[in-house]
Amino acid sequence: MPYYIGDVIKDQKYLVARTPEEFRKGGIEVSVNTRVVKMDAGGRVVQLSDGKELPYDYLVFATGSKAQHLGIAGEDLEGVFTLKTLADTLRIKAYLAGRSCRKAVIVGGGFIGLEMSEAFSALGLETTILDVVERPVMRWDPEFSKTVLEELNRHDVSFSGGTRTRAIEKGTDFPLRVVTDQGELEADVVLMSVGIKPEVELARAFDLRLGKTGAIEVNSYQQTSKEGIYAVGDCCEVYHRVSKRWVYLPLGDVANKQGRLAGRNIGGDPMSFPGVVGAQSFKIFSLEVAAAGLGEKDASDAGYQPVSAIIWGTSIAKIMPGAKKLGIKLVADKTTGQLLGAQSIGENGAVSRINALSVALWSGMNIDDIANLDLAYSPFFSGPWDVIHIAAQVLKK
Amino acid sequence: MPYYIGDVIKDQKYLVARTPEEFRKGGIEVSVNTRVVKMDAGGRVVQLSDGKELPYDYLVFATGSKAQHLGIAGEDLEGVFTLKTLADTLRIKAYLAGRSCRKAVIVGGGFIGLEMSEAFSALGLETTILDVVERPVMRWDPEFSKTVLEELNRHDVSFSGGTRTRAIEKGTDFPLRVVTDQGELEADVVLMSVGIKPEVELARAFDLRLGKTGAIEVNSYQQTSKEGIYAVGDCCEVYHRVSKRWVYLPLGDVANKQGRLAGRNIGGDPMSFPGVVGAQSFKIFSLEVAAAGLGEKDASDAGYQPVSAIIWGTSIAKIMPGAKKLGIKLVADKTTGQLLGAQSIGENGAVSRINALSVALWSGMNIDDIANLDLAYSPFFSGPWDVIHIAAQVLKK
Repeated sequence: MPYYIGDVIKDQKYLVARTPEEFRKGGIEVSVNTRVVKMDAGGRVVQLSDGKELPYDYLVFATGSKAQHLGIAGEDLEGVFTLKTLADTLRIKAYLAGRSCRKAVIVGGGFIGLEMSEAFSALGLETTILDVVERPVMRWDPEFSKTVLEELNRHDVSFSGGTRTRAIEKGTDFPLRVVTDQGELEADVVLMSVGIKPEVELARAFDLRLGKTGAIEVNSYQQTSKEGIYAVGDCCEVYHRVSKRWVYLPLGDVANKQGRLAGRNIGGDPMSFPGVVGAQSFKIFSLEVAAAGLGEKDASDAGYQPVSAIIWGTSIAKIMPGAKKLGIKLVADKTTGQLLGAQSIGENGAVSRINALSVALWSGMNIDDIANLDLAYSPFFSGPWDVIHIAAQVLKK
Repeated sequence: MPYYIGDVIKDQKYLVARTPEEFRKGGIEVSVNTRVVKMDAGGRVVQLSDGKELPYDYLVFATGSKAQHLGIAGEDLEGVFTLKTLADTLRIKAYLAGRSCRKAVIVGGGFIGLEMSEAFSALGLETTILDVVERPVMRWDPEFSKTVLEELNRHDVSFSGGTRTRAIEKGTDFPLRVVTDQGELEADVVLMSVGIKPEVELARAFDLRLGKTGAIEVNSYQQTSKEGIYAVGDCCEVYHRVSKRWVYLPLGDVANKQGRLAGRNIGGDPMSFPGVVGAQSFKIFSLEVAAAGLGEKDASDAGYQPVSAIIWGTSIAKIMPGAKKLGIKLVADKTTGQLLGAQSIGENGAVSRINALSVALWSGMNIDDIANLDLAYSPFFSGPWDVIHIAAQVLKK
């Protein structure tokens, strides 16, 4: 079955269907199943795989990213998937629906791997996550990774850290066998979630300059190294306001902002993209996990002198029914007191705290101000001293 | 029954009991049921109602606030209450427990009045709120007051706006009769929640300078007009960072911060209080209601040129189960684009948004930045464009 325009599927009620015809009604021509095969940046023309030539005033690269592969044997076996597009999801669903499955193996303990462990569990599959590193979600402090690990185990998801996957083979008791340096596991389905990388094949072929991260280099107006050519989304870099570096941060909200910015600039209402602070969140079973800014290592790399503090408090006033444990970590510069990073984890309120701290990171706020921030206190929503205040006070000491 | 030290009651499991003896163990002398009757600011001595004299190096006024009264007949009848202290709560509970009650009248539709309407409803009382103004929680936009009103009605709480209470009398079918300019209502219990005012009787007697608001004037170190004398909490003013004025904002979290600051300054670790942005929240049945900064009128009074926008979105990505309607209002200065105020209302996520916007108000951030803020997006917690972004974009237009 063919999919059109970002894999938008008509029969999925939660998606707005957009066929090429619908775009055409809006005056937008969409060519599906068509590749750009040649580009003349000087003459501002691209040549398409169907032989047509398309002249342009402005060209936008929105080629996105693609799932990484380990390059091991068996990644192409039936029942081995990556998850990048909606089409991938439907393929996984169709595969699972077609047979009685009991076991899943996930290679890679990042966001996608963790979120899929919850999805597989919900389907009743005994699920194991394998990762070469020692713990899930390495961006977060080991203390918070431990909390994620406990949450996984509480839901019967196994995590096997320090485990390198060597190959995937046909299995004996199950369709597939995953061979690792720590032994073998059999399973009905294997998800490879070892990260994504920018899709820059076309950009490279057409000599657009790439940044150190391997993604397309852009300036704050989303312009690439060639005049009239813009890039947005997962295929390009983005400016990090705290590290003051161009980084690769392929996130949906960032892509949305870049697309809008490029549109404004092309449309003659210029605006520069102010950058990001690396705010991120995900949910795993009952846990909210969120972060923004830099961890100690990235902060050191960026020339700061990071100091940090972790505290555990409660999501709402601790005297209230429904108060949940909430962890928060702050990283600041020892010399200036500037907030450099924040992480939070808990059943409730972690994302809320990180959003407030993202604004503080955006503004370059220091720890003294954060220790006294005016937040909307009510016992239903926090203690009179919120975990944000307490963490800042502890770090100050 | 006597109560000690902020009405901390031993048999209430949710409170930490602190008797004078416990304070003494920590080296702190506490005299209860004792008034300061005379003060010699020059000689740094206060004279107590028990005849003792107490010399001091530093004196801290933390006299708090008191419930306002309308000064009408019948406010002292049995069954008519104000709610300011824990002792008040216990008195109300004891009164209700002692008889079979069916109807409650609340005079005043502020935070306390609204929250108590929920408490009375939970006890099965038919509850009516009377207010001289047309709508509840006047700080919020009329559109949001309407949402509060709908929530009250959905839980069978009546709100009668534009109603002036003239007197309270003994009733015929019920113990009490509330006489208003719109007619009469009978009830078992009447709560007077018409606001609070700073307790400055002692400060006035001792010639401390009061501010325009009627509360004790302090500087950023919490020092009053007399050397060695500090004031903190509900009895004094606080600096508002957006209006750049000293205001009266008697809130628990602000009082906590001022107390800590005064302690640091007295203890020789000086720090100035950076002020507040007027962040506030409350819960009414299923609704979160929050605000920070200024509304249009206060903004105009403070010399700004306010423009505003209200949008309705969802608390989390609208494709997700559990997404709830969320309203947000932003006020900004027309000339500079500076954010001046924010309000939010919804079953979920209103306080979270206001906390992020409180940080933006604190930093003096403008609408362009807010339209592009980096927040921790995941469909579980927001859309890729959060309601904050959308409101800022709408206001920008």
